[in-house]
Amino acid sequence: MVSLSQLTENEVFMAFASYTTIVLSKMMFMSTATAFYRLTRKVFANPEDCAGFGKGENAKKYLRTDDRVERVRRAHLNDLENIVPFLGIGLLYSLSGPDLSTAILHFRLFVGARIYHTIAYLTPLPQPNRALAFFIGYGVTFSMAYRLLKSSLYL
Amino acid sequence: MVSLSQLTENEVFMAFASYTTIVLSKMMFMSTATAFYRLTRKVFANPEDCAGFGKGENAKKYLRTDDRVERVRRAHLNDLENIVPFLGIGLLYSLSGPDLSTAILHFRLFVGARIYHTIAYLTPLPQPNRALAFFIGYGVTFSMAYRLLKSSLYL
Amino acid sequence: MVSLSQLTENEVFMAFASYTTIVLSKMMFMSTATAFYRLTRKVFANPEDCAGFGKGENAKKYLRTDDRVERVRRAHLNDLENIVPFLGIGLLYSLSGPDLSTAILHFRLFVGARIYHTIAYLTPLPQPNRALAFFIGYGVTFSMAYRLLKSSLYL
Repeated sequence: MVSLSQLTENEVFMAFASYTTIVLSKMMFMSTATAFYRLTRKVFANPEDCAGFGKGENAKKYLRTDDRVERVRRAHLNDLENIVPFLGIGLLYSLSGPDLSTAILHFRLFVGARIYHTIAYLTPLPQPNRALAFFIGYGVTFSMAYRLLKSSLYL
Repeated sequence: MVSLSQLTENEVFMAFASYTTIVLSKMMFMSTATAFYRLTRKVFANPEDCAGFGKGENAKKYLRTDDRVERVRRAHLNDLENIVPFLGIGLLYSLSGPDLSTAILHFRLFVGARIYHTIAYLTPLPQPNRALAFFIGYGVTFSMAYRLLKSSLYL
Repeated sequence: MVSLSQLTENEVFMAFASYTTIVLSKMMFMSTATAFYRLTRKVFANPEDCAGFGKGENAKKYLRTDDRVERVRRAHLNDLENIVPFLGIGLLYSLSGPDLSTAILHFRLFVGARIYHTIAYLTPLPQPNRALAFFIGYGVTFSMAYRLLKSSLYL
């Protein structure tokens, strides 16, 4: 088997792998948070999910929406919308041979901003906490996209 | 042109590529399922989509929601929420030089669990079928994330 | 530091990187469009977001949904659902050594179709403009998946 020693010797790529794994694990935690609120507040989207809480009409009353659950779901969707571009652009940026300290600064800012975004969304903290966290993550991704296109545009 | 023979000789990477392509194709099938239910049940989200079914007020009655369509959309969103982490973490895990049989076990379990999740969601099968499928996929991704961070954390 | 000269000398990979960065940047623009419509139309999903527009009951009237905002959000979600498979399948396809001109044709068609899809969704243009744009992007991704599995299936 080929060891791909090139990639694992590339420090930028290793840093990208570590930060990406952390931010994706954080995103997966949102599924658990949704499940937690759905179960503790008895708020479900599917009839089969609340079959254990009663029969027929008695169970149907749990098919509702709840502010808390919807808030977690919006935070989760916002994560998806922002982490997917980071995943794609960050991977290509890591392979384009950027400066190590610049790259790590980008990754740290992004992961920090997304974790703060989740805290600001779920607490909830007053604005502009969440907006600021969002725009830092957004700016980091655009900065990587800009550097990537500047160094290696091929259309 | 460079042939990247290193990557195509890497069996773990080739297995990851095959399983990922399958699970992403399955996810794309959800779009077709949504379109199928929207057209056969005449349930639309945009006025321009139902313009062919009537004029003015007559068309507006098709702007509604439907249990079946919402179910497919929830299954699709759940796919997105779970396949995106698998895509990112799985790619980095594949490049970190794992044991071939362990890696293939991870990929097979994940793809099988997601296909079963879709079947359980769309049939629908009684719980805990869907929950079980969800947690198998979730556990596989966390197991890869754990191995990845253990072997190559670089912060 | 390793320069990964193999990857940056691979023209298909460089083209994939450029087109992916463009289509992901386009997707990120949808967040800005949502924020723009939310602020100009005063339509919010979270109480903390409209705290600046009034106190108590006065602010609550901004917690509503709006056709324009929902349209942008549907376009954004459709982007996510289609760009994620392109990202995964496209990356693996790029590394599988395809013909350069065939690969670039795939990337151009996909990026063009997704940009046209956004225009058709937000204007909105009458159908089948949006449906056509959707199916071109969908077909391109399936074509890459098919070539990938044909050339390098490893299960």
